[in-house]
Amino acid sequence: MGSNSWQTAITDIGPGKINVRGYDIVEMMEKLTFAQTVYLILRGELPNEKEARMMEAILVSSVDHGASPPSVLGTRNVISGGNSLNSAVAGGVLVIGDSHGGAIEQSARIMQELVSRGGAPSDLATGIVAEMKKAKTRLPGFGHRLHETDPRTIKLFEIADSLQFSGKHTELAKAIELELEKTTGRKLPINVDGAIAAVISDMGFDWRLGKGFFIISRVPGLIAHAYEEMTTQKRMRKLGNADFEYSGPLKRNI
Amino acid sequence: MGSNSWQTAITDIGPGKINVRGYDIVEMMEKLTFAQTVYLILRGELPNEKEARMMEAILVSSVDHGASPPSVLGTRNVISGGNSLNSAVAGGVLVIGDSHGGAIEQSARIMQELVSRGGAPSDLATGIVAEMKKAKTRLPGFGHRLHETDPRTIKLFEIADSLQFSGKHTELAKAIELELEKTTGRKLPINVDGAIAAVISDMGFDWRLGKGFFIISRVPGLIAHAYEEMTTQKRMRKLGNADFEYSGPLKRNI
Amino acid sequence: MGSNSWQTAITDIGPGKINVRGYDIVEMMEKLTFAQTVYLILRGELPNEKEARMMEAILVSSVDHGASPPSVLGTRNVISGGNSLNSAVAGGVLVIGDSHGGAIEQSARIMQELVSRGGAPSDLATGIVAEMKKAKTRLPGFGHRLHETDPRTIKLFEIADSLQFSGKHTELAKAIELELEKTTGRKLPINVDGAIAAVISDMGFDWRLGKGFFIISRVPGLIAHAYEEMTTQKRMRKLGNADFEYSGPLKRNI
Amino acid sequence: MGSNSWQTAITDIGPGKINVRGYDIVEMMEKLTFAQTVYLILRGELPNEKEARMMEAILVSSVDHGASPPSVLGTRNVISGGNSLNSAVAGGVLVIGDSHGGAIEQSARIMQELVSRGGAPSDLATGIVAEMKKAKTRLPGFGHRLHETDPRTIKLFEIADSLQFSGKHTELAKAIELELEKTTGRKLPINVDGAIAAVISDMGFDWRLGKGFFIISRVPGLIAHAYEEMTTQKRMRKLGNADFEYSGPLKRNI
Repeated sequence: MGSNSWQTAITDIGPGKINVRGYDIVEMMEKLTFAQTVYLILRGELPNEKEARMMEAILVSSVDHGASPPSVLGTRNVISGGNSLNSAVAGGVLVIGDSHGGAIEQSARIMQELVSRGGAPSDLATGIVAEMKKAKTRLPGFGHRLHETDPRTIKLFEIADSLQFSGKHTELAKAIELELEKTTGRKLPINVDGAIAAVISDMGFDWRLGKGFFIISRVPGLIAHAYEEMTTQKRMRKLGNADFEYSGPLKRNI
Repeated sequence: MGSNSWQTAITDIGPGKINVRGYDIVEMMEKLTFAQTVYLILRGELPNEKEARMMEAILVSSVDHGASPPSVLGTRNVISGGNSLNSAVAGGVLVIGDSHGGAIEQSARIMQELVSRGGAPSDLATGIVAEMKKAKTRLPGFGHRLHETDPRTIKLFEIADSLQFSGKHTELAKAIELELEKTTGRKLPINVDGAIAAVISDMGFDWRLGKGFFIISRVPGLIAHAYEEMTTQKRMRKLGNADFEYSGPLKRNI
Repeated sequence: MGSNSWQTAITDIGPGKINVRGYDIVEMMEKLTFAQTVYLILRGELPNEKEARMMEAILVSSVDHGASPPSVLGTRNVISGGNSLNSAVAGGVLVIGDSHGGAIEQSARIMQELVSRGGAPSDLATGIVAEMKKAKTRLPGFGHRLHETDPRTIKLFEIADSLQFSGKHTELAKAIELELEKTTGRKLPINVDGAIAAVISDMGFDWRLGKGFFIISRVPGLIAHAYEEMTTQKRMRKLGNADFEYSGPLKRNI
Repeated sequence: MGSNSWQTAITDIGPGKINVRGYDIVEMMEKLTFAQTVYLILRGELPNEKEARMMEAILVSSVDHGASPPSVLGTRNVISGGNSLNSAVAGGVLVIGDSHGGAIEQSARIMQELVSRGGAPSDLATGIVAEMKKAKTRLPGFGHRLHETDPRTIKLFEIADSLQFSGKHTELAKAIELELEKTTGRKLPINVDGAIAAVISDMGFDWRLGKGFFIISRVPGLIAHAYEEMTTQKRMRKLGNADFEYSGPLKRNI
């Protein structure tokens, strides 16, 4: 080891050896789902059954949202310029900033800071809503440009409830939703970013990982869009995120 | 719809509606694992039980390989310059090119072209090895700079066998491995890229999606590295992919 | 120096010392223009007066082309997602692929390979046009989706002529233009990518640097678009490269 | 124009027409240097002679700083993974964040805010240094990990003085340098980022463009590193920014 050596606690490799957080990759391939593996690598420990179930639902929830999100436009546009699949995914992930997906990070940060102060959720909610009103900023994780009530939020909270995960952060999120309605006179419902933020906070994840859940979930969607662009469209075409229509299979049941 | 309108068959959205490949996201959150969801969005159809099991193993297999891959250096380096998590993931995915992860794409392309010609695997193998020798190029998907025998390859093929997936592409991959040993006099074993290429080809995936499996699998690893860099290292540090040591948990069992 | 040490011949740094290709940065700041500096760092040697003049014109030529190029859409879209200026520039440069700007690289490669074979330009032109026709591919560097005759091409060749730069590659480009018109019956004029490719080839630059000239020239344009997007538009807006109109100053003279 | 139409004031294009900020690109190619063109596209107006001269010096100043900056590691690493030149440049620019190059942006923002408040430079300096000390943060634009006195800073200020550009922002920067030395007891000299920040602020540029000057200046350096990596090194090599040595030409004069 030279003078610039540094340490990493994620994966130990050597000839014929790949141990992730201490677990042999071969045993993982045999016994873990991908969602369990994601939990392990982010958290350092294996999830129990409930954590694993919650993780699956979170990752499924944000896999795609059609062709309107900027990240999809980013990915398709890189293909349109005549580039590789990995560049296209990078071009999409690059767009996932403060205004797109980034709400998970900011929403989780605010909730974790508030909860760590202690106090009744309703009091914390009153305080933060007043603070944001004074600062004339919007609370990240509430309201959606398309969905009045986001069906993913309801399902996420339902699953979290059934697994007995819902704790102080979810209570706070719901208290903020009430307070926002009381103060502004209109419903600004918890959106899927806010719901994921509340649930991962109740699961004990650091808010700095917030955007990571969205990225892991959305990357397969971006790849599907890159592939569709690559195989069905001309390069250098006129491209935008407001002028497409859905042409896939009709509604069906699993 | 204006004159620039275009069509997408992936996800149908509207107020309160998110249908992925025709399936309601709420039903998916209830009934599907994340790996099943990945299969669905890439393929357009739900996986059966065997396809779902194979998908889990493929996605688990490449989740991380320590701090030596260039994509990890790319991700850590973006954090080191003082940037966001999504930029860091983009910076890592950007590196996954022809020489890193890209072997899945090229290996799957070659195998799919050969198998589509028809003929005995051993004949196809003799042909392609001779061709590559003449062109003085290396066959993507064979040989590894660290592992003499890649444990992930063996496990992937074992699972594929037990699920009765192994077909013409896997046979061809094994025939090429034999032919390479016969011709060069040394073992150039199928590496994990080659194994994934063979298995996804036998599952019927287009080679153009090859790199996508690696990207989906590796992104959680990149996020773990970004988070570790962010929380344990100084910005603008001396950084490289040859001078680290593992400091995490010792080998343990699931 | 450790066992992983490697060598670079670009810039020598030390406390109080920054020597680019052997020249003190302080002397460069005093005596060189930026275009001369670009020539120096790419080529390793200072340009003479004619080379410096040509370099200025090449770099000016591609600084911007309005809001329709995919790279501009890429840059604006990254800002729209709520990200930093450097991410936005990266997101634009990422799009400059085989179908956008990449023609300089491919066109220069083809011309350099043909010229190195030797022979009359008209014979080389007949050969390559027949070859491309047979392979049913388009020759990069000829034709433009908007300009029938690209005014930048004419000016670049005029400047190259007046500086006595025009050599075998420019002759070849013009011979190919003639041959294309003869064979296809319609004008497929040398576009600005093809013109830059010819001129930098005559100046002795390796075709592998081809896309670099376009990138250096276009980055200031991308920054202007990022800044305009940042200061005049809302985040997460509907965005495309076909639905804008010009609202800037009317035509004026220098 | 549809309902999603939007406006841009940068470049007006049409068949045979490319007018940048109102000026015909052909006239620009004939009469402007690249640095003048950069000024025009960022500012909207042509520079006068002094502004043009200052612009040349700023853009020359940051063209390269050897192989140690994270952006160079980013660019080389993308090539090492087997990717294209534009991906490599994007990979480098992506790294230019808050801790690398970003100081221009933050330093210019702070100076512009302070100067707009009005008051004597020494008072503003005392205030901000006290504020940063209390907040335990470092002032961006002061101090360098390698250079005790950055030769580029001295030359930039010398040129700015001779062109009579130095105004309130440069005075403030110098007052802060003095105050920092008085307060901390050690010299934390204005670095090149701080000097560029002061000069562009005195020239009237918005701090939001600050990082842009660094990016425009450094991109040619990144391309030189990408080209060197591509033509002299193996793919997937061990790579870091602490273990290289300079092997280029010895010190020489222009």
